[in-house]
Amino acid sequence: MSATGARETILNLFRQASAGYVSGARLSEVLGVSRTAVWKQIEQLRQLGYRIEAIPSRGYRLCDVPDLPLAEELRSGLATRRIGREIRYLAETDSTNRQAYALGEAGADEGLVVIADRQSAGKGRMGRTWASPPGVNLYVSILLRPPLPPQAAPQLTFISTLAVSRAIAAVSGLAPTHKWPNDVLIDGRKVAGLLNELSAESDRIRFVVLGIGVNLNMTAEQFPADLRMPATSLLLAGGRPVPRALFARTLLEELDALYAEFLLHGPAPLLAAWEERCDLVGKPVEVDEGGSGLVRGTVSGIDRDGALLLTLADGSTARILAGDVRQC
Amino acid sequence: MSATGARETILNLFRQASAGYVSGARLSEVLGVSRTAVWKQIEQLRQLGYRIEAIPSRGYRLCDVPDLPLAEELRSGLATRRIGREIRYLAETDSTNRQAYALGEAGADEGLVVIADRQSAGKGRMGRTWASPPGVNLYVSILLRPPLPPQAAPQLTFISTLAVSRAIAAVSGLAPTHKWPNDVLIDGRKVAGLLNELSAESDRIRFVVLGIGVNLNMTAEQFPADLRMPATSLLLAGGRPVPRALFARTLLEELDALYAEFLLHGPAPLLAAWEERCDLVGKPVEVDEGGSGLVRGTVSGIDRDGALLLTLADGSTARILAGDVRQC
Repeated sequence: MSATGARETILNLFRQASAGYVSGARLSEVLGVSRTAVWKQIEQLRQLGYRIEAIPSRGYRLCDVPDLPLAEELRSGLATRRIGREIRYLAETDSTNRQAYALGEAGADEGLVVIADRQSAGKGRMGRTWASPPGVNLYVSILLRPPLPPQAAPQLTFISTLAVSRAIAAVSGLAPTHKWPNDVLIDGRKVAGLLNELSAESDRIRFVVLGIGVNLNMTAEQFPADLRMPATSLLLAGGRPVPRALFARTLLEELDALYAEFLLHGPAPLLAAWEERCDLVGKPVEVDEGGSGLVRGTVSGIDRDGALLLTLADGSTARILAGDVRQC
Repeated sequence: MSATGARETILNLFRQASAGYVSGARLSEVLGVSRTAVWKQIEQLRQLGYRIEAIPSRGYRLCDVPDLPLAEELRSGLATRRIGREIRYLAETDSTNRQAYALGEAGADEGLVVIADRQSAGKGRMGRTWASPPGVNLYVSILLRPPLPPQAAPQLTFISTLAVSRAIAAVSGLAPTHKWPNDVLIDGRKVAGLLNELSAESDRIRFVVLGIGVNLNMTAEQFPADLRMPATSLLLAGGRPVPRALFARTLLEELDALYAEFLLHGPAPLLAAWEERCDLVGKPVEVDEGGSGLVRGTVSGIDRDGALLLTLADGSTARILAGDVRQC
């Protein structure tokens, strides 16, 4: 049994004992190791942040679980089919996307999850950075290998967006909205950022990395001063802290269900569900396409490739593949 | 001066001397090295296949150039702006695409060309292999970094196809046709294969590798027995061998011009030019989309994303992103 496996077994025994004591003898028996080895595992759990009481005559008792998205915590009760078959937790990394992309290049299987407490070089869209302080937020990347041509890859952005907003609604009761192409807002403030990365051949996707950052328990002081658009966290918007492992588990389950539906029924149901939470339809906007200047028009929706459709002043339709949208 | 640089200087001096002699003293003077060092460079050129005569009283004379797509030969007189700023020649490699992709990941600049005499693991579409014997054909990969969203990447396939058929027409006088998505045919037989690979984020292409294999001087015996479709080479179709460096240079120049036009004017002129050589428009076909079965219809053209448009029996239009097309 691996060290992670042994720790998961211990945590499961604690959970079954529903906050009661589990004797060292019982742990030693189930794990098939000496009581000294059990003690070492307990020490490691304590170092990860688990508070474990030890009373000589009664055994060990789990008093508190750390608010960390540890692999052990994510796997506990995770009801997914594809996503999370392998979970790698990193206390700190440069960027979970960079790690997942490298693992994808090295042949990692579909469903791999890389999650970190802190990112030193969190990546945002268009080469921007994503503020990633430790202890408060969610930074996770998921590796998928859909059997599809690369043109279908942008559709996966809508899967991540929808999964994030559903997880937010489920865990916090808040009602997020979507902003094209990949923002999730609460009361007009950005609460999540998504960055998907793609490796493909002419005819087929090799893999996609869905990168997801959600501001869960970040306080106002923790936001960078130079944000491009107003931001918030679930704590700031809802007034209550959100347990990170619970949120991560909920998100992976939503993603898993949406991805399965997408593989079976294609992008249409997904794009329709995304549009329901997009409050820009019918509104006048200005889109900055980067190099090619500004386009002004009224949002009429998105097409099946996920492109934004604008009705222009002359009645024609513009189809925008990438850019920043501002309401006028 | 690098060894390659020194060899290029020597070759240029030979070319200027138009098959006459260049003295060792002159070479030593221009290169700024000893006559012994000049002799070493001459020996290296001989090992690469250059036939160089040496007559003590007159100097050196270039009698014959090897039919190898060496970097020195490609750069000589190459009239390109972006493509070929760096050229790496490999006598043998697994796959020029794999090498160029790895260099792309490592940050290589736009315009890098990787070219090989032989590939041990030449890659074709859909995980297929591409027969890559030494001495006869062209195996080249070009790294581009277009400032575009990933949805635009399939348009680059039409750039490579068009560049290949223009280079074939220019060098051999033959009249190639195009088969969607990325085949170049002569008299209905496949003469070139293209495999583009993509690394991208949600909003932008990081890089694209255009992989191009052209059967130049391959003989009938050199084709694998189990080919998916009939194949030919320029030698077989035109009856004359094609100098590989000349063909490679022509191809890089066509690519460079088409890519510049694409960046300035978008995909429309390119797709129109591609369609002119596509003899399937108006014909009934059957498309094998892989997992999702067969589609039958009449080819009406391609849309601006490069998808194949079919008119079906019920009058509706099917838009095919990837698959194998067979004429009915």
